[in-house]
Amino acid sequence: MSDNEQPGIRKSVRRLRDRINKMFGNLSQNANKMKMQAYIAKYKGAVFDESAKKDDEVFRMAVTDLNLNEDILQTEKVTFSVTFVDGNNPFQAVQEACELMNQGILALVSSIGCASAGSLQSLADAMHIPHLFIQRSTARTPRSGCGLKRNNRIDDYTLSVRPPVYLNDVILRVVSEFAWQKFIIFYDNNYDIRGIQEFLDRVSQQGMDVALQKVENNINKMITGLFSSMRIEELNRYRDTLRRAILVMSPTTAKAFITEVVETNLVAFDCHWIIINEEINDLDVQELVRRSIGRLTIIRQTFPVPQNASQRCFRGNHRISTSLCDPKDPFSQNMEISNQYIYDTVLLLANAFHKKLEDRKWHSMASLTCIKKTSKPWQGGRSMLDTVKKGKQSLIV
Amino acid sequence: MSDNEQPGIRKSVRRLRDRINKMFGNLSQNANKMKMQAYIAKYKGAVFDESAKKDDEVFRMAVTDLNLNEDILQTEKVTFSVTFVDGNNPFQAVQEACELMNQGILALVSSIGCASAGSLQSLADAMHIPHLFIQRSTARTPRSGCGLKRNNRIDDYTLSVRPPVYLNDVILRVVSEFAWQKFIIFYDNNYDIRGIQEFLDRVSQQGMDVALQKVENNINKMITGLFSSMRIEELNRYRDTLRRAILVMSPTTAKAFITEVVETNLVAFDCHWIIINEEINDLDVQELVRRSIGRLTIIRQTFPVPQNASQRCFRGNHRISTSLCDPKDPFSQNMEISNQYIYDTVLLLANAFHKKLEDRKWHSMASLTCIKKTSKPWQGGRSMLDTVKKGKQSLIV
Repeated sequence: MSDNEQPGIRKSVRRLRDRINKMFGNLSQNANKMKMQAYIAKYKGAVFDESAKKDDEVFRMAVTDLNLNEDILQTEKVTFSVTFVDGNNPFQAVQEACELMNQGILALVSSIGCASAGSLQSLADAMHIPHLFIQRSTARTPRSGCGLKRNNRIDDYTLSVRPPVYLNDVILRVVSEFAWQKFIIFYDNNYDIRGIQEFLDRVSQQGMDVALQKVENNINKMITGLFSSMRIEELNRYRDTLRRAILVMSPTTAKAFITEVVETNLVAFDCHWIIINEEINDLDVQELVRRSIGRLTIIRQTFPVPQNASQRCFRGNHRISTSLCDPKDPFSQNMEISNQYIYDTVLLLANAFHKKLEDRKWHSMASLTCIKKTSKPWQGGRSMLDTVKKGKQSLIV
Repeated sequence: MSDNEQPGIRKSVRRLRDRINKMFGNLSQNANKMKMQAYIAKYKGAVFDESAKKDDEVFRMAVTDLNLNEDILQTEKVTFSVTFVDGNNPFQAVQEACELMNQGILALVSSIGCASAGSLQSLADAMHIPHLFIQRSTARTPRSGCGLKRNNRIDDYTLSVRPPVYLNDVILRVVSEFAWQKFIIFYDNNYDIRGIQEFLDRVSQQGMDVALQKVENNINKMITGLFSSMRIEELNRYRDTLRRAILVMSPTTAKAFITEVVETNLVAFDCHWIIINEEINDLDVQELVRRSIGRLTIIRQTFPVPQNASQRCFRGNHRISTSLCDPKDPFSQNMEISNQYIYDTVLLLANAFHKKLEDRKWHSMASLTCIKKTSKPWQGGRSMLDTVKKGKQSLIV
């Protein structure tokens, strides 16, 4: 509301806002759903743990930033709740999200893998709750598209916050540039190979020879197995294939795999390998280069840095926490890509909430009983979703 | 209970059984969950429709058979309810299954695809309801394993009724027998290529050259695209690759695809193609052979026929509906594989119910409120599941 409006209107808006503010405290809880692989991780390795924790940390940081700052929300405050769920338990995800909807939320933010995303997507559709989905990969393995199929007659309340995976186009361009005619693709256990279907399609039409091979968790055993099962001439042919390889795997698996093939002399100095993964940080790069022999090409995702250093700590028009934008801050050095999208999602939602608060016709939410078949969806969901979508174009990284 | 027991015990058993019988009427509803692709199908083609309907039909037939026959259940009767759900809406599947659990069921039978199976699996685990899962494929496309990952610390209440897919072993054996060194695999849109990961792994280690290509829904457009994008020498190389092909697709897509490649002269009489799919019936075989040129190998699933013709209509020790076992009955000719497993599952459950009714310590079920986080699972679930598992070894096709 601008300042040059009539005092009467301004007063009634203030009254409305006060009323909503109270409700907002109860109802506008952003629910940040994450994999409980954070917990499971204790049994499986430290990687999940760290990354899920960081999503949580950044989510809280974003809300705190917002609440300390009157740029966007002015007098309102955002409240939220965060729940960790097991990434392989879609029913638990539904159960937790329903619990949050019973308490009353205006949007659901999830940082989760494909298995549970499908359940949350259909839940959001049924209840008309905007669902901002940040796709998480398992243990820093490259993402595949979730391939969420939908009934066309139902509205889609899920917004994928991370852009789709460009793996197919990127590898095809790189492979064509190097003029490879024959190569092998190694992928790790967690990678869903449907992610490179299109690439395989295209190379098969171009008559390139591609082999596909999964890298087992126990790399040492896998390689010993190769040596014991192959005859000499097979092994030589295999060595020749290995001269050109693409690795679609987590940085950790890539390091272990490279170490092993180098030590067992499966590759020599004439090899050229490509590693493709959005989530490779500078430390990973150094380590991968150190362990390799031959030529190594690394393809990863980076974000453009503002030319003007003073613009670093702005996202949209909003000043963000310096720990996220100061390149010297150890926190920002270890950021995962999902963290960036989490932060922006919170900003995006806050902007949308603020806009909807000024819309008098909007049905702000009562709590839903989401599991009963007879329960009604949120009447204000559609317009909330539209507002979020409009904001998305201008804001997200 | 045998007849030579003391009259007093027999009387108290009868009393117990009367009590349970009443409860059984209310509570032992087998819930046969199926894809609502039966409904969606109206918009997509008749295939889904037919097959889901037949699962329903056979399920009802099995229950009627049981209730007319005192071999297994004696005086008790089985009641049930059937719900159709959209196969791409895992939340709907959870919602419907919860509704059934609220009414009180002793087991859940599902004939559904992988997307919703994961939700039902984690729901069954949470509520301790035995879940007998008959994996359905989309539109008669070959199945891939569902790859349901689980948290190891939770008991598994899902029993996969259909045996795992043997595709990988079977194709590898066939390809090795024919001594193929270079071939192309065509798969249809609905096929999840993770199903042949192992096969690809093995052939890559043996140095065979394999191309993988998806067949689009619009086959005509796809082939026109090939012709327009490839140069003459590329097209000739491609034609050479097509001499050896494996089709992993529904019979319908296979027919259309073969017709198209034959008409456009992409293949000649020197070609050898293999079609692999559990669900190919005799009519499909005739049609596929008629449309092909060159050599065609078809791999499908068949069930052993009892040598003694009078044993045809028995499954386990139970006489089954003649419409299922008479080879001249048009109904049995058009049976889908899932139908067979549905029938057997109902028999299996009835046997297990009957055994549990004689177990006095067993917690027969009160209704569960399955979506609340605080709700308790069924205390009798574990022992029900164990009884079902024991029966499974002796009964299932």
